[in-house]
Amino acid sequence: MTKQEQIRNNIDYREVYEHGFVGLTDVFGDDSTPCKTARISYGEGTKSVSDNRNLLRYLVRHKHTTPLEMVVLRFHLKLPIFVMRQHVRHRTAVMNEYSGRYSEMSDEFYVPTHEDISLQSTTNKQGRAEPLADLMEFESKEAAQMIFDACNKVAHQGYRDLLDLGVAREIARIPLGVGNYTECYWQINLHNFFHYSNLRRDSHAQKENRAFADPMFELVERRLPIACEAFNDYIFHAETFSRMEVAILKNFLSSMWVREDLITEEWQKQHGMTKRECSEFIDRLNIRKYQDA
Amino acid sequence: MTKQEQIRNNIDYREVYEHGFVGLTDVFGDDSTPCKTARISYGEGTKSVSDNRNLLRYLVRHKHTTPLEMVVLRFHLKLPIFVMRQHVRHRTAVMNEYSGRYSEMSDEFYVPTHEDISLQSTTNKQGRAEPLADLMEFESKEAAQMIFDACNKVAHQGYRDLLDLGVAREIARIPLGVGNYTECYWQINLHNFFHYSNLRRDSHAQKENRAFADPMFELVERRLPIACEAFNDYIFHAETFSRMEVAILKNFLSSMWVREDLITEEWQKQHGMTKRECSEFIDRLNIRKYQDA
Amino acid sequence: MTKQEQIRNNIDYREVYEHGFVGLTDVFGDDSTPCKTARISYGEGTKSVSDNRNLLRYLVRHKHTTPLEMVVLRFHLKLPIFVMRQHVRHRTAVMNEYSGRYSEMSDEFYVPTHEDISLQSTTNKQGRAEPLADLMEFESKEAAQMIFDACNKVAHQGYRDLLDLGVAREIARIPLGVGNYTECYWQINLHNFFHYSNLRRDSHAQKENRAFADPMFELVERRLPIACEAFNDYIFHAETFSRMEVAILKNFLSSMWVREDLITEEWQKQHGMTKRECSEFIDRLNIRKYQDA
Amino acid sequence: MTKQEQIRNNIDYREVYEHGFVGLTDVFGDDSTPCKTARISYGEGTKSVSDNRNLLRYLVRHKHTTPLEMVVLRFHLKLPIFVMRQHVRHRTAVMNEYSGRYSEMSDEFYVPTHEDISLQSTTNKQGRAEPLADLMEFESKEAAQMIFDACNKVAHQGYRDLLDLGVAREIARIPLGVGNYTECYWQINLHNFFHYSNLRRDSHAQKENRAFADPMFELVERRLPIACEAFNDYIFHAETFSRMEVAILKNFLSSMWVREDLITEEWQKQHGMTKRECSEFIDRLNIRKYQDA
Repeated sequence: MTKQEQIRNNIDYREVYEHGFVGLTDVFGDDSTPCKTARISYGEGTKSVSDNRNLLRYLVRHKHTTPLEMVVLRFHLKLPIFVMRQHVRHRTAVMNEYSGRYSEMSDEFYVPTHEDISLQSTTNKQGRAEPLADLMEFESKEAAQMIFDACNKVAHQGYRDLLDLGVAREIARIPLGVGNYTECYWQINLHNFFHYSNLRRDSHAQKENRAFADPMFELVERRLPIACEAFNDYIFHAETFSRMEVAILKNFLSSMWVREDLITEEWQKQHGMTKRECSEFIDRLNIRKYQDA
Repeated sequence: MTKQEQIRNNIDYREVYEHGFVGLTDVFGDDSTPCKTARISYGEGTKSVSDNRNLLRYLVRHKHTTPLEMVVLRFHLKLPIFVMRQHVRHRTAVMNEYSGRYSEMSDEFYVPTHEDISLQSTTNKQGRAEPLADLMEFESKEAAQMIFDACNKVAHQGYRDLLDLGVAREIARIPLGVGNYTECYWQINLHNFFHYSNLRRDSHAQKENRAFADPMFELVERRLPIACEAFNDYIFHAETFSRMEVAILKNFLSSMWVREDLITEEWQKQHGMTKRECSEFIDRLNIRKYQDA
Repeated sequence: MTKQEQIRNNIDYREVYEHGFVGLTDVFGDDSTPCKTARISYGEGTKSVSDNRNLLRYLVRHKHTTPLEMVVLRFHLKLPIFVMRQHVRHRTAVMNEYSGRYSEMSDEFYVPTHEDISLQSTTNKQGRAEPLADLMEFESKEAAQMIFDACNKVAHQGYRDLLDLGVAREIARIPLGVGNYTECYWQINLHNFFHYSNLRRDSHAQKENRAFADPMFELVERRLPIACEAFNDYIFHAETFSRMEVAILKNFLSSMWVREDLITEEWQKQHGMTKRECSEFIDRLNIRKYQDA
Repeated sequence: MTKQEQIRNNIDYREVYEHGFVGLTDVFGDDSTPCKTARISYGEGTKSVSDNRNLLRYLVRHKHTTPLEMVVLRFHLKLPIFVMRQHVRHRTAVMNEYSGRYSEMSDEFYVPTHEDISLQSTTNKQGRAEPLADLMEFESKEAAQMIFDACNKVAHQGYRDLLDLGVAREIARIPLGVGNYTECYWQINLHNFFHYSNLRRDSHAQKENRAFADPMFELVERRLPIACEAFNDYIFHAETFSRMEVAILKNFLSSMWVREDLITEEWQKQHGMTKRECSEFIDRLNIRKYQDA
């Protein structure tokens, strides 16, 4: 069985591209861990919170983040150097990376498929064109792939030749491109993983970053479904509106009247919100309430 | 005046290799800062420490590190990606790096000189041969340089060609080697800079890392001479001996007798040690003392 | 001039309660610092951002936080131990605190005024009653103050008596209450100060924490007015709505049509929003646009 | 069974004083974890390191600290506020503490026994007298205890009276002394736990801190015996000598000659040192070697 076949058969791993993978090798804690540790802070105060799901959602919603830091995730990743360079910016993670000083670098390089080769965006200085706006021709994409392959081949051959001359590994690796694959263990707590996910799964993140960040999140979701659902509801799919935007929203809604009990009941049913969430939402937007006569 | 000439004429910058540089653009505090902040902890307790030099050396010697964290250093660095990859591992630093997604990467690459091209060490798995053991022939070094140049040329040409095809910058940069130069602001507090210096100026660090770390330290030394002297005396040139080694040392010295007043006087004069340092040194090694009859 | 009079006359200090104060002793950088360091990331990409104000607001709005970490604030604080216990939870700050092991603790204690003595909230398990709901009688408040004074007096007398017996300071301080004043230097970067301000100036923070956090923010505002305005607009006075709430909002607004050019012009004038902010706001809420025929 | 009896019968807990305890509730990883993660860095380079014990000792000895950060320890602690105030200074730990805003504070206070009530040290400004120098009389110790008891009683009664008046918990707790017990979960990785242990188990740490730090270390030792032995050998019982002291040591030993093979054999047997450690030790001190003719 090849390495990639082993990956494919391991429920805690996901293949990414031709050579890469993400694996969640170890998890310290589960959905009950933040609840258990939070209860020490709240003492008797949490008696009324009857179950873990509610408490966990409350913690995420109110940004009580330390209990989430008690859960720790250890990943095994194989990814191109330019993606690794983004990972390592997350300074709260602990990392052990394959060393090109000790060991020989692989001959594996990331080469984007046609789908991933795009024009520079005309509206976004830091990204590529949106799929629909991507008018790049088939021939250009073919040409681009040939350039990638040629560069990688030359760089890898240069590396081998330098090693054959006896040059030290730490020097010989210098011509290798940032598409060369590397490998690491990467450990981070749940709170900071959510922060990472929020940034790297964002539509503005480089697509290749999302290609790794997305399956990492799926692996975590399998192990901590409630926490991840809360993250999606209160962080990832939430929207923040500025002071000015809130003023405009309030103005838009200033002519509204809601009958709080009816609308709350509807929202609870339709969206799974708590009664308190409904009530706070109405208050935050100054929506006028009336009660049935 | 070219960029490199400007660097050469700026007292707070140092050139490194053909294309790189290190600059110390801003310093928050000076040698008196750790003393001022430490005095709040010690209150009246520091009345007896008459001057800053003594207090600063005391703080470094006894690893009272928070006062050193009050001094902050901001660097401007231009260095190859593979050196940057080491810098970024120091997680207490704050960094803003040039972005290959927003802007075009330079055509500047690190190519080691003959002096810096060495054989793999036979004794040290992670490094290159010691200069004296470096038996690499002139012809091999020439051949190595030709390989570096060829790889860089191909990679850079590939990058230009991809850009000419309209490929987004964030993709086009992928073939560029880790010897390509990048640029950043890098900010770190003095305590963590000492930790960085201790690791990256060590003889086991990759030579190219030391080539940047050494002039960085010199720039800091100009601004915080007393703190840096204390670092050299108590950290960088200090030696740590294990429990077992200390036992052997004590055994070696077990037949010694010293007349404490005489030997202390000599050490104070010769090494600039305080009386207390002398006395503690004798005690730590269980050296027997006698007094003049 | 007493210590408190000196504080009163120092433009960088603010008195808090009878014995406490906050001071902003040193600032590393100003409103231009995040811009200068951000420009290295964006390279040519920021040419179009003509001025610092726009760039700074852009950075805060889009949570590009590393440039904000380049600004560092050093505070000198005198505050009760129970407030200090909250400060120290902000782990990114550097602190040097007065030491009760080295020096004698002060005889100064925080005693809440009538205004600050309130009933336990009936709705909020962790706080005191809202001012309007505070039905505590004058006599009860008087009684409470007498208890505070009596406890402090006994504790301080106990401390003095223990010192008189010769008991080591580190033990003698044990009976002193958490209202006893302590003093520290507290250094934090601007990004983390904003995080601190957002939590500790929140209406759910203990009132005594806000009493220190509010004037700290004012002192910073004097030195970094543009950054602080951006913080207020995009963080402190912003509102985050959950996935469910955004769905409801979109539903509320689903019958709306706006003429984008007119409404944008109005918002720009009235709220000082950029054209891009207006456009993104409309899109985020799926508000339907029409153009003049 | 009382809470303290449960503690006494739990192998992962240790009682401390009358009311306190330390517990190691969860451990992420074991002695093999740092080895497994380190091997990804070293790749083939670690083939020669045949077993985990050697590799782990190598990592600790050479301060390769990231693999140690992969092991995470979760403690449950009950300790006086003034000891907690030291714990919280370790900023790499994650903590959830009992909240005096949500819940009522306990009536348990730390009162030092006769053994722990000592005079102020005359030589060490921050500590108490050494046991042998502790000439405090029995009557004084009795008097001191009476003062502690009286202060605690008054403070606790004040607290109860304030609660009875209806005063909010967050205010009512203010008179309680720093000897009052609190409780927390405290999570830290192994590398930083070693740093904590090195500082807080040091003879200069306050005795009450050591009283908690020592059994915490014992609990960890049970779970990670090899890592803890390496910590003891290379960090806790190691000695660091300054540049000046190393010069003196070299001078002391300058008249020595050792026959390397014999002395190495002896040290390996007696101290369990590796051959390489022996050889490096001799070289670091410039000890002259000879070989048998």
